[in-house]
Amino acid sequence: MPTIMVEGPPMDIERKRELVKRLSEAAAEVYGIRHITVLIRENPPENVGLGGKLLADRKKGSSGSSSR
Amino acid sequence: MPTIMVEGPPMDIERKRELVKRLSEAAAEVYGIRHITVLIRENPPENVGLGGKLLADRKKGSSGSSSR
Amino acid sequence: MPTIMVEGPPMDIERKRELVKRLSEAAAEVYGIRHITVLIRENPPENVGLGGKLLADRKKGSSGSSSR
Amino acid sequence: MPTIMVEGPPMDIERKRELVKRLSEAAAEVYGIRHITVLIRENPPENVGLGGKLLADRKKGSSGSSSR
Amino acid sequence: MPTIMVEGPPMDIERKRELVKRLSEAAAEVYGIRHITVLIRENPPENVGLGGKLLADRKKGSSGSSSR
Amino acid sequence: MPTIMVEGPPMDIERKRELVKRLSEAAAEVYGIRHITVLIRENPPENVGLGGKLLADRKKGSSGSSSR
Repeated sequence: MPTIMVEGPPMDIERKRELVKRLSEAAAEVYGIRHITVLIRENPPENVGLGGKLLADRKKGSSGSSSR
Repeated sequence: MPTIMVEGPPMDIERKRELVKRLSEAAAEVYGIRHITVLIRENPPENVGLGGKLLADRKKGSSGSSSR
Repeated sequence: MPTIMVEGPPMDIERKRELVKRLSEAAAEVYGIRHITVLIRENPPENVGLGGKLLADRKKGSSGSSSR
Repeated sequence: MPTIMVEGPPMDIERKRELVKRLSEAAAEVYGIRHITVLIRENPPENVGLGGKLLADRKKGSSGSSSR
Repeated sequence: MPTIMVEGPPMDIERKRELVKRLSEAAAEVYGIRHITVLIRENPPENVGLGGKLLADRKKGSSGSSSR
Repeated sequence: MPTIMVEGPPMDIERKRELVKRLSEAAAEVYGIRHITVLIRENPPENVGLGGKLLADRKKGSSGSSSR
């Protein structure tokens, strides 16, 4: 069963491949179950709010914070 | 931590901005935590079922009910 | 209240219509509540991982397993 | 893959058994995939809000509406 | 339809009542739809990870950071 | 932002600690973002359906399959 849902920003297929590989390995070892399902959700910055502001608006206003 | 996921119909960025602002304020006050994350999910009417029918089909057939 | 979220592959509207109808009937009978909401989520194969690999990569490499 | 998450009120194991059987059959037929996972979530009435009120409070105040 | 799922720490019923009231009001106004459903999920600190550590362990080790 | 939700069976705190550590490391490296939130959900076997049957019933009937 174990199913992992990941909510993050959009990403390219290379990073998806790496993310799935690494999360699945970690979960498989801890659960002792090999059949891990991963669902990657890509959230556009206008659909994410942090501290009351859209991520899309925060990006415009700042020169980039690395700790979202 | 608190994370709010909102499942609703598609909406423009002005309304997303307002939704994030208002939900975050409400949650921040009740939890006493300022770091609120909001994820807005926009569900097209052909991906939503209400009472056994697709919202896309209900809209075509009716002249609009306001209480979905 | 009951809300059913279905995570699966992309599908055409005919199948969505059928899925909503059948899931809603089943849930309505078991819960004894008619107001069932269904949210269908369509996951592209490059956003799904099974056993450590992207579904998009598994499809290319194999001649198709029917039990995913 | 298909995974069905059901958000509803608490229920006994007989009804869970029936719910899983019926939802899985429906999804398996529509998707053409037999490996359906179902996760049942039981939400206590004090954790559910409808129209701005806790379900726990609505129940106390009314003599019961059957259409939640 | 709109459904709001809130992932946060455990809380008492007074705060749940307030949270549901405020989130529902905000969503109802922005969406122009009164039928808002809210599901509150209470996550115990041993089931939440922040920056690689369980919240349960962070609480023990520190004298409390207020911005989680 | 990235938030990881893990649906699995109940587990002890040692394994939760390990799971959070490993999933967070993997996600932090792939996303290049250190602030990873993990939510662990523990699903009792009577709330999980696989292939139309409750996990609670499958366990009783079989002498254990290791690949769930």
